[in-house]
Amino acid sequence: MSWNTFGRLLRVTTFGESHGPAIGAIVDGCPPGIPLSEDDIQPYLDRRRPGQSRFTTQRREADRVRILSGVFSDDVITEQVTTGTPIALLIENTDQRSKDYSEIRDRYRPGHADYTYEAKYGIRDYRGGGRASARETACRVAAGAVARRIIPQVEIRAALVQMGPHRINRDNWSWAEVDSNPFFCPDAEAVKVWEEYLDSIRKSGDSVGAVVEVIASGVPAGWGAPVYARLDQDIAAALMSIPAAKGVEIGAGFAAAAMTGSEAADEMYIHDGEVRFTKNNSGGILGGISSGQDIIARMAVKPTSSILVPRRTITRGREEAEVITKGRHDPCVGIRAVPVAEAMMALVLADHYLMHRGQTGRG
Amino acid sequence: MSWNTFGRLLRVTTFGESHGPAIGAIVDGCPPGIPLSEDDIQPYLDRRRPGQSRFTTQRREADRVRILSGVFSDDVITEQVTTGTPIALLIENTDQRSKDYSEIRDRYRPGHADYTYEAKYGIRDYRGGGRASARETACRVAAGAVARRIIPQVEIRAALVQMGPHRINRDNWSWAEVDSNPFFCPDAEAVKVWEEYLDSIRKSGDSVGAVVEVIASGVPAGWGAPVYARLDQDIAAALMSIPAAKGVEIGAGFAAAAMTGSEAADEMYIHDGEVRFTKNNSGGILGGISSGQDIIARMAVKPTSSILVPRRTITRGREEAEVITKGRHDPCVGIRAVPVAEAMMALVLADHYLMHRGQTGRG
Amino acid sequence: MSWNTFGRLLRVTTFGESHGPAIGAIVDGCPPGIPLSEDDIQPYLDRRRPGQSRFTTQRREADRVRILSGVFSDDVITEQVTTGTPIALLIENTDQRSKDYSEIRDRYRPGHADYTYEAKYGIRDYRGGGRASARETACRVAAGAVARRIIPQVEIRAALVQMGPHRINRDNWSWAEVDSNPFFCPDAEAVKVWEEYLDSIRKSGDSVGAVVEVIASGVPAGWGAPVYARLDQDIAAALMSIPAAKGVEIGAGFAAAAMTGSEAADEMYIHDGEVRFTKNNSGGILGGISSGQDIIARMAVKPTSSILVPRRTITRGREEAEVITKGRHDPCVGIRAVPVAEAMMALVLADHYLMHRGQTGRG
Amino acid sequence: MSWNTFGRLLRVTTFGESHGPAIGAIVDGCPPGIPLSEDDIQPYLDRRRPGQSRFTTQRREADRVRILSGVFSDDVITEQVTTGTPIALLIENTDQRSKDYSEIRDRYRPGHADYTYEAKYGIRDYRGGGRASARETACRVAAGAVARRIIPQVEIRAALVQMGPHRINRDNWSWAEVDSNPFFCPDAEAVKVWEEYLDSIRKSGDSVGAVVEVIASGVPAGWGAPVYARLDQDIAAALMSIPAAKGVEIGAGFAAAAMTGSEAADEMYIHDGEVRFTKNNSGGILGGISSGQDIIARMAVKPTSSILVPRRTITRGREEAEVITKGRHDPCVGIRAVPVAEAMMALVLADHYLMHRGQTGRG
Repeated sequence: MSWNTFGRLLRVTTFGESHGPAIGAIVDGCPPGIPLSEDDIQPYLDRRRPGQSRFTTQRREADRVRILSGVFSDDVITEQVTTGTPIALLIENTDQRSKDYSEIRDRYRPGHADYTYEAKYGIRDYRGGGRASARETACRVAAGAVARRIIPQVEIRAALVQMGPHRINRDNWSWAEVDSNPFFCPDAEAVKVWEEYLDSIRKSGDSVGAVVEVIASGVPAGWGAPVYARLDQDIAAALMSIPAAKGVEIGAGFAAAAMTGSEAADEMYIHDGEVRFTKNNSGGILGGISSGQDIIARMAVKPTSSILVPRRTITRGREEAEVITKGRHDPCVGIRAVPVAEAMMALVLADHYLMHRGQTGRG
Repeated sequence: MSWNTFGRLLRVTTFGESHGPAIGAIVDGCPPGIPLSEDDIQPYLDRRRPGQSRFTTQRREADRVRILSGVFSDDVITEQVTTGTPIALLIENTDQRSKDYSEIRDRYRPGHADYTYEAKYGIRDYRGGGRASARETACRVAAGAVARRIIPQVEIRAALVQMGPHRINRDNWSWAEVDSNPFFCPDAEAVKVWEEYLDSIRKSGDSVGAVVEVIASGVPAGWGAPVYARLDQDIAAALMSIPAAKGVEIGAGFAAAAMTGSEAADEMYIHDGEVRFTKNNSGGILGGISSGQDIIARMAVKPTSSILVPRRTITRGREEAEVITKGRHDPCVGIRAVPVAEAMMALVLADHYLMHRGQTGRG
Repeated sequence: MSWNTFGRLLRVTTFGESHGPAIGAIVDGCPPGIPLSEDDIQPYLDRRRPGQSRFTTQRREADRVRILSGVFSDDVITEQVTTGTPIALLIENTDQRSKDYSEIRDRYRPGHADYTYEAKYGIRDYRGGGRASARETACRVAAGAVARRIIPQVEIRAALVQMGPHRINRDNWSWAEVDSNPFFCPDAEAVKVWEEYLDSIRKSGDSVGAVVEVIASGVPAGWGAPVYARLDQDIAAALMSIPAAKGVEIGAGFAAAAMTGSEAADEMYIHDGEVRFTKNNSGGILGGISSGQDIIARMAVKPTSSILVPRRTITRGREEAEVITKGRHDPCVGIRAVPVAEAMMALVLADHYLMHRGQTGRG
Repeated sequence: MSWNTFGRLLRVTTFGESHGPAIGAIVDGCPPGIPLSEDDIQPYLDRRRPGQSRFTTQRREADRVRILSGVFSDDVITEQVTTGTPIALLIENTDQRSKDYSEIRDRYRPGHADYTYEAKYGIRDYRGGGRASARETACRVAAGAVARRIIPQVEIRAALVQMGPHRINRDNWSWAEVDSNPFFCPDAEAVKVWEEYLDSIRKSGDSVGAVVEVIASGVPAGWGAPVYARLDQDIAAALMSIPAAKGVEIGAGFAAAAMTGSEAADEMYIHDGEVRFTKNNSGGILGGISSGQDIIARMAVKPTSSILVPRRTITRGREEAEVITKGRHDPCVGIRAVPVAEAMMALVLADHYLMHRGQTGRG
């Protein structure tokens, strides 16, 4: 985890701005011999792609991924597999609509990284937010698809469990429903409420926050480490590194603060010869190490800062001003954060799988 | 951040179990020429030390820190300063009361790392929890005291803002109050409620969770980075790596999920020629980079898993059993997490200060 | 330094095989505001490019570099500068001559990585050597050109000082001569001998080794560190990571083994108020830290293993066989290692410049 | 490899100055379940310990190692084993003879790090050389002993093959001889010459350089990686990080520069169904990956800079001066570098063993 690299043994380095010729990711440390082609990656990018409903930005990004290296096939090895060398993933930018950026060049948009970027670097690629653009997350999704292939025994799924003030009813949870609505919402009842709500938000030129929940099933007990390579720590870092994330929790999360010890601890028993827990307040992680239960994490996503409602701000010349952000923005960027959160979870888990195998010799 | 090392340019490596001869930390990458003696570190350890009220464990840990290396003084340089080489901090264990561990050797305590540790390593130092012991956090506090000396312009303070279901009234916030009660609570009114509540929890042999808030003032705009060395990401990792942490949020945190964009974004204006913000929902971080506002983070701490209430569990031999954890335990481990959270914040910020200076040449 | 990443604060990640669509490098951690365009990089690639004389491989590699990210210009900032974000450098492969690889697919070429690659990964991209191809060094040269821009105060030059058994006469050293002959040789007298010698080697289908010397002038005293971030250690790693390198020495190097302490130590004096040394056996590095003298390193390059002389080997099926490597190979790969060695030196020095600035606040 | 940490998955962090209370090493990432006690480490420290003959410094350093953490035994697990958590190794300094340092405080000793240290840090622990002291290498030897336990299938041995101008006759090589003379010399004939030679050097108050050769047997084909985690690169870094090292070579090393391709490449054949090579010019490494042959590296060590022969130098006040280094110094520090070189080789190999297992699942 250094500037633009994430991970330890499985390392992802991303590059590119939304208005340059391309963005991309280098996935390093992938085991050899794993079947991998563009077809394994593209569906995940398609899930994240904007413009699929009226509830996401209407920008057109083809987001076609190309694998530039790290795979091999010939007339004997006919199914393309990884070689163990760096897998370069390239996504060309196609929708660089030439546009008038003079306003955002000179005015800092509240809630955006404009002001802090310039404070840090003294220079800022104001076209589309530079590296702070949500477009960088396409690279994460592509890299996450590779990570999934490394740990096929693990199923990683995410859903939107809260939009603005509206939470789902967990009793209605259906994974099938998640892929049937434009919100990745697991509760068909909530979908109706959210549609109406988000339409009104969108029409008012405003935006709204959300909560994403990610669940990984099939992780055996033993991944992670007790101190500074903790699984919960790495998941927290991974999710909090997603643009607009403002909070992360594992298992019971902040609700655990209000619990007593006798309520919180997941008791253990044996069922059919297997270790079982009575509940999962720990979110599948005890002492930084996986317990074999589902790993459960939630991430709070703030509302998109790009809105049509006029906001008070300052200019680069330190004058007061007003700014609105025209353009094609997501009224609830949390929606498109769902596949990104899955990808980051996949990257963390695949890395820990390799780390654990390295130290202990067990998978 | 690798196994037992935290940080990039300022790197802390900790070692030691609660029942071995000593624990310690190596702080590497500290700038040279910074005044540093044991007296700069000990007060922070004393704040964290147990046994200071009936609300923390009655274990006696002297927690005297010794600096073994990395500092220098002679008859010319009479004030001891850092030399730029690794600073080794050693804390000897004095209270290794010999005790009967046979029960916890064979039974996994629910909520503890016992089961996951053994799943990972195949072996477990069951005496006191090994590396999973909260005792490791004394090393963090000692290292954090060094980090504070690197960035004296930054003030880092933390407080307990929720105990069990009881939150403070933020209108009563007083930093002076924080050091006047056994809870690090900033609200004198809440103290009374908490005392009574925690007494009843303690007497029932149970425990309770809490929320810690950490605030760093004086960080200039520009520390951090936009993608995988984000300030918020690193704070999330730092806090989530503290034992018993289950959630982390920055600024408005999970509350941001329920906000609209027009509510959430902190507007900017000029006051006396200086950049100001109307509020601080961002928690002082925009796009992973500090904005010059106070950096605000909160951490949810679960209730201590060591309780006297009998819990259902299994043995190493996969038999069902019951377990209670006798001994001298914290009824609310969140209290002692307060100085630990400060220390982790200090380590993250000092590291980012050096990283920023390295890349840009500015402090 | 992890799998395919080199460096600490300035980090280069390379990817790509010689027979894929492209190779490339991501340069991360570059300071912002540094003027940088393709024109600053291309000349270094052109120096390394094969096919420029009969003494290097006749493969045609256009080696045109494109900067995909990390730079910015507009109508105000008219000279393109770095933004502090990752600089992606892409070089498309143009000469993927379709060729019959059946022989090298099944037979391990002695001196090549064929056998070890397959032992490691269980799979091998045999077309052009995969990652073991010298083509990867084009990425290093491109990244090194970026590194040079970070430390313009340092001049980094290299030369071939030995070809096969023939050494230069150091009294004839002329930097101007280095760019006037196809060998990067600083001794015009040696050039004549080498031409004749290498012609005979080439005609016999054989190859020959060489020694490259790299000199960096203008490094101030103070870069590096005393233990595991030593300047000499990092230079050794950097040069030894170049394909075909078999030895590295700093200053007097192996000759120092035969010296006495009174001969070896470079004495110090004052000249015109400045610190001077009587000689430079240390190669500009004392205790891992630069002394202000020229930094001098040498690298031994083994002869190209791809030769037309038949060699005894085995097949993948563990049968004995004979192999010759047809194709367009360098009779002395040490020649083209000269710009690569310069690039690696530049990367090490720029990284240490940033590290030193980070820790001490001084440039 | 960052400041004071060496390694990737197996990470060693050292601390301490020769004149502080203690030095030590933290070995992190060690697999669990490996038998380890002080008795496994102490013999290696004893080999390195000074004062064992008239040919090494007469300083008395007891060099008793204590394991502070990371191991476990009880009444069931009676043989102490590693737990997978950080192993802290502490060596107390006992011979801190109080001495007059006023001369070396003010005068830079040529060949020492005095001047560069002060240029870097602005401050210098002049007593005994601070971190630049050879005493730090005791930590490496202790950590190396742990590394050996991780890869018991590999035998790592080193010897002194050249002292000053006197090389061994390789036909006389006997490993048994290495432990029978004060030079770790494998050639009984050479021992006689060296004794006489080093006596004369010592009596004249001078010192002399040396070459150390390290050989690792039993490494299977497949450890290492092709680009920036090359086995040869890491060995070069490891050996060059030893104080006084000025050169490193692998296999034929610098001699390979004078060879032709047909001479250099080690041909392959099958013997009794096993892969064999006709010679070992590659030093057991092809393309950065082990070939299954012995791994062979050599390191050039410069003569000790601490000599009684007066040398010209300057003072901190930039005045010219003369300096001699009184005290108890090694006339040939290369001798004591032999166990250090073995230790560094062990650390590199154990790290690569874990890395290879992590990525590929194979040992």
